[in-house]
Amino acid sequence: MPARPFTTSSSMWLEPATKPWLNAYTPRPIGGDELIERAADDWRRLAASAPPARGIGELLITTLEYASVLPPTLYGAACAVAAPPAPEGYVVTRGNAGDLAVVGADAAGALYGTLRLLVLGPEALLGGKKTVVSSPDLSLRMLDHWDNLVPHPVMGTIERGYAGDSVFFENGDLVPDTDRIDDYGLLLASIGINAVCLNNVNVHATEATLVGERLDLVRAIADILRRHNITTFVSVDFAAPMTLGGLATCDPLDESVERWWRETTDRVYSVVPDLGGYVVKADSEGRPGPFDYGRDHADGANLLAAALAPHGGLVMWRCFVYNHRQDWRDRTLDRARAAYDHFMPLDGRFADNVLLQIKHGPLDFQVREPVSPLLLGLRETRVALELQIAQEYTGHAWDTYFLPTAWREVLELDVAGDGGADLGRDLVDRRGSAIVAVAGVGRDWNWTGNTFSQANLYGYGRLAWDLHEGTQTIAQEWAIASFTGDADLHEALTRILLRSREAYENYTAPLGVGFMVTPGGHYGPNIDGYEYSPWGTYHFADRDGVGVDRTPTGSGYTEQYPPALAARYRSLEDCPERLLLFFHHLRYDQVLPQSGVTLIQRIYDTHFEGVEQVRAMRRDWETVREQVPEGTRTDVDRRWQAQEHNAIEWRDQVCTYFLRHSGIADAAGRTVYP
Amino acid sequence: MPARPFTTSSSMWLEPATKPWLNAYTPRPIGGDELIERAADDWRRLAASAPPARGIGELLITTLEYASVLPPTLYGAACAVAAPPAPEGYVVTRGNAGDLAVVGADAAGALYGTLRLLVLGPEALLGGKKTVVSSPDLSLRMLDHWDNLVPHPVMGTIERGYAGDSVFFENGDLVPDTDRIDDYGLLLASIGINAVCLNNVNVHATEATLVGERLDLVRAIADILRRHNITTFVSVDFAAPMTLGGLATCDPLDESVERWWRETTDRVYSVVPDLGGYVVKADSEGRPGPFDYGRDHADGANLLAAALAPHGGLVMWRCFVYNHRQDWRDRTLDRARAAYDHFMPLDGRFADNVLLQIKHGPLDFQVREPVSPLLLGLRETRVALELQIAQEYTGHAWDTYFLPTAWREVLELDVAGDGGADLGRDLVDRRGSAIVAVAGVGRDWNWTGNTFSQANLYGYGRLAWDLHEGTQTIAQEWAIASFTGDADLHEALTRILLRSREAYENYTAPLGVGFMVTPGGHYGPNIDGYEYSPWGTYHFADRDGVGVDRTPTGSGYTEQYPPALAARYRSLEDCPERLLLFFHHLRYDQVLPQSGVTLIQRIYDTHFEGVEQVRAMRRDWETVREQVPEGTRTDVDRRWQAQEHNAIEWRDQVCTYFLRHSGIADAAGRTVYP
Repeated sequence: MPARPFTTSSSMWLEPATKPWLNAYTPRPIGGDELIERAADDWRRLAASAPPARGIGELLITTLEYASVLPPTLYGAACAVAAPPAPEGYVVTRGNAGDLAVVGADAAGALYGTLRLLVLGPEALLGGKKTVVSSPDLSLRMLDHWDNLVPHPVMGTIERGYAGDSVFFENGDLVPDTDRIDDYGLLLASIGINAVCLNNVNVHATEATLVGERLDLVRAIADILRRHNITTFVSVDFAAPMTLGGLATCDPLDESVERWWRETTDRVYSVVPDLGGYVVKADSEGRPGPFDYGRDHADGANLLAAALAPHGGLVMWRCFVYNHRQDWRDRTLDRARAAYDHFMPLDGRFADNVLLQIKHGPLDFQVREPVSPLLLGLRETRVALELQIAQEYTGHAWDTYFLPTAWREVLELDVAGDGGADLGRDLVDRRGSAIVAVAGVGRDWNWTGNTFSQANLYGYGRLAWDLHEGTQTIAQEWAIASFTGDADLHEALTRILLRSREAYENYTAPLGVGFMVTPGGHYGPNIDGYEYSPWGTYHFADRDGVGVDRTPTGSGYTEQYPPALAARYRSLEDCPERLLLFFHHLRYDQVLPQSGVTLIQRIYDTHFEGVEQVRAMRRDWETVREQVPEGTRTDVDRRWQAQEHNAIEWRDQVCTYFLRHSGIADAAGRTVYP
Repeated sequence: MPARPFTTSSSMWLEPATKPWLNAYTPRPIGGDELIERAADDWRRLAASAPPARGIGELLITTLEYASVLPPTLYGAACAVAAPPAPEGYVVTRGNAGDLAVVGADAAGALYGTLRLLVLGPEALLGGKKTVVSSPDLSLRMLDHWDNLVPHPVMGTIERGYAGDSVFFENGDLVPDTDRIDDYGLLLASIGINAVCLNNVNVHATEATLVGERLDLVRAIADILRRHNITTFVSVDFAAPMTLGGLATCDPLDESVERWWRETTDRVYSVVPDLGGYVVKADSEGRPGPFDYGRDHADGANLLAAALAPHGGLVMWRCFVYNHRQDWRDRTLDRARAAYDHFMPLDGRFADNVLLQIKHGPLDFQVREPVSPLLLGLRETRVALELQIAQEYTGHAWDTYFLPTAWREVLELDVAGDGGADLGRDLVDRRGSAIVAVAGVGRDWNWTGNTFSQANLYGYGRLAWDLHEGTQTIAQEWAIASFTGDADLHEALTRILLRSREAYENYTAPLGVGFMVTPGGHYGPNIDGYEYSPWGTYHFADRDGVGVDRTPTGSGYTEQYPPALAARYRSLEDCPERLLLFFHHLRYDQVLPQSGVTLIQRIYDTHFEGVEQVRAMRRDWETVREQVPEGTRTDVDRRWQAQEHNAIEWRDQVCTYFLRHSGIADAAGRTVYP
């Protein structure tokens, strides 16, 4: 059977043209497990499109269980590691004769090791070393698709999707070309993703039937993803007992509701026995939930947990719960407080198979937020850190924005505020933590809209596997794996990625204040767009100053942090400058302790700098664009043009807005329109 | 044949319950013209649902031509008028025996006279007089429907419609119930409307076929409307030679284009021989037009005029031409100048059957604008004054807003600025002027969304007939004709209408500056909503002041007016206070010459007053609501609730915005949120 080529012109970081090693090795699976066979098949499949090479040797793929049948030198090397790999982990080793061996802790590990080798090649993976060992930091590394079965009138096929239609669904049914789902499974496995939730957390009527009459869709997709060691989850509607079941209530303590969920879940598992579980958005932005019945979120989550427990299923319970009908006039309310206020008192009350899924910041995936204090506070409850690959507030895949830069900062926070263990370490040390990201993948030819956005998916997988992986490494790996070309090309692409977040942050909302975006769509500037809305996302700019006082003189949100962090954020001197307006309302003439200039001048400076940084990235791109294939080249060209236009629009609107408010001219004399 | 009742529960001002005179007279048509028969039929039809009455006498309906067959006293009275009625006009007279006669200048006049008598009844129409004579000021009194054949993805079935789906179209076809179109024709005839354009001026692909393969729809509707003396127009796509005809150009000077329009128009008139003509929006907000070919609008309009002239058809050429891709940074541009700058140099170059259709103000149907200087300037070109009944910027039929108040002010402008002839007089005196309004009617049970909005349609018809009719009369007539009840009810409804515009103006954008609305939808406040947009609608608020300098120190727009008006608007002292920020950029601490308080205080005062005025109207309603039928009562209740909420939101957002900018507190100490 000839190897099936990729269904799209872009195979992202699996691009065979960059991988001369594929045809230099003959994969030999040992042990007979399907995932081991799959690993060998994946290698052969991509090798069919890869450059020809003189054979060097064999690539032996197996698990620790069967490793003794390896040639002695390979077996010895694999066993000589300081500690054996953890579940899903692997050892990759090189024999003297040039053979390679991937030895998984289990079959999944063999798959991940083989695919890692496939992406990077032996030289880059092993460097000068004979052996590399790697295990995932977290056992659940998940993607949440916000896909709709039928297009939503406003949100379309994928809510906050900027890369075309759903990979899974089309017009209420499975996509006609399921090979693409298979390709997608391979792409995700190659970066270690092992779970996918198929549908939007806003579960509309049609999508609710995925645990009802359209369960066949879940089975069909799960059957494909399972080949790649990916577990399937579904988002469920908390009100399903009413909307699907015809009950008069969805009160979590009602017996008929418990029965409905139990019977429904039993039926679901009879069709998809290895379903991962349910993702739930309850009492959030208009979704139904336990609050409707005077119950709390432990009651709600435990209801589903009880139905899922017999099947080993998990509840991913989202903590994005806040009052989205806030009155802008009431400055005593602070949406940032909401998740902690709602969930912290419930710590310890959740069943073992419940994970609280918590956005990285207290608001909603802004360019700059502090880490959610709820993530730090919960100690008796399993948590899942939620990130967003879809570039909702970060440029809609028009503007280049390398998200791992931001995610690393989240994971690097010293959780006690004492320079000690960081959040990454802390998550690993806690019982059963997980990581989840909103996917941002669609059926565009390049999967992600902007080709640079591929690096965000890649980086998410890499960070989910290794919470301490460096952004430079990730960016470089992606560039080299995705594009043939010389070192200039790979260095330029890497440089662009690593600078992109700072540029975007510089030209958008200043110093952590967030949400100066066009309401609804969330692309492009609208400084007062949410200022008088019910969404609780205000910046309080007036003629004297701007920012949100979240210290004890304001909302007191700072006090949700461990004491040392609270002290850091309370203090004008110690608060990171990039977060100053998130935590403080400052006068325009306030001199900022860290940069030494006034707030208004800092706003001007960062915004002019942001545009220059975009221009620099664009120039960087110009020097290497000829090395990039035609389709990608012209598409990226177009996106740089849009980004530069957008950056200028941001800069000018922000600067004009603050000039009109402050009356203070730019000290550097640049053009700020009156 | 039993009389067909109205298809809807609301027959608006034709409500038979208010008309005990209907069964007191037996209509007798004389002369055999269809419209005369129609007038008698209309009377009989409504009488069938009206209260029983003892017969008083006959209602003789005829034209001057046949008047000699009337009984001598009636004939004598009809002939005794100082001047005979003009075309479409009528005499109504009462004989000694109690008989009535309507004598039209022509059959249409007989219809209008009869329907006027039908709406008001003999006592109200004649008062103490024996004879009344009336003729329309303008021969073309038109409604523009912005209806789509198929729902537009954003704009829906009716662009800027707030009263349900199209009366004409449904899913690309005729509505199933054409009786409603017939009812609508009667309603319009009863207020003297004699022309209707069926479709949206933004002519999308499907709608373009109304002069092509879907001409049958135009014929079907024209056949119904014709019964009520209503001429049908269609909006056409200037690019139709390309989109429908497959030509490579729509250059107005291209011979193949001329031929296409001639042949198309010949075919159209072979099917609808009395079509009124075409309405055209060209080179406007993205529509194609002559500018695309380096031609001017005289070239464009005359192209269609040549095709229409052999059939007696008219071109209604809209002057809503401006740059909608303006750069907000460029303060030298002024959208208000656009129509005059584009069209004034072309005065005299338009064919005789072209009317330039000009919005009443230079921008776009704001609550307060000065009269368009183009309307005043053009002397060698026929003009049509364009009004908007659809409440796009005036509360979406949620907020009660009696538009005739605003229209009267437009018509009362002394055109030379010398206290002499007003615009109404001027339009009558000019050759072939017309009046047009965007309809705002839909298939809601009450036709207009808010029942009070019925008064806007009524008022438009009344003013179109008599440009000097008073708003008090109009409001009172509507209240009495629409609702049975005591004088308290009619007085309260009248009071509410007459106060409504001032209230709305008070709580929305201050002093003529306009456009502080939610982008796209245009309902509710968004002070900076259009401030950084490409639409050219800015207020330039900063920490020091607000408003647009349109005097010679600014855009110089004032100089488009006749000298005395220009001087009035240039002067801070003479400029009407309600227009101050339209013409001037003022400091918040500027003392306003007319009210004697500072600008910022005036902003606070008007906004608090606006909310109180809404509450007063609502209280007024409460005192009489029990007299109103259940359906209307609860619907209007709901709309008052929405309006009060909306008014408070406007007040608070406007006041907070300006407090934040000015830093100046309300001198009266009311709550302005910081």
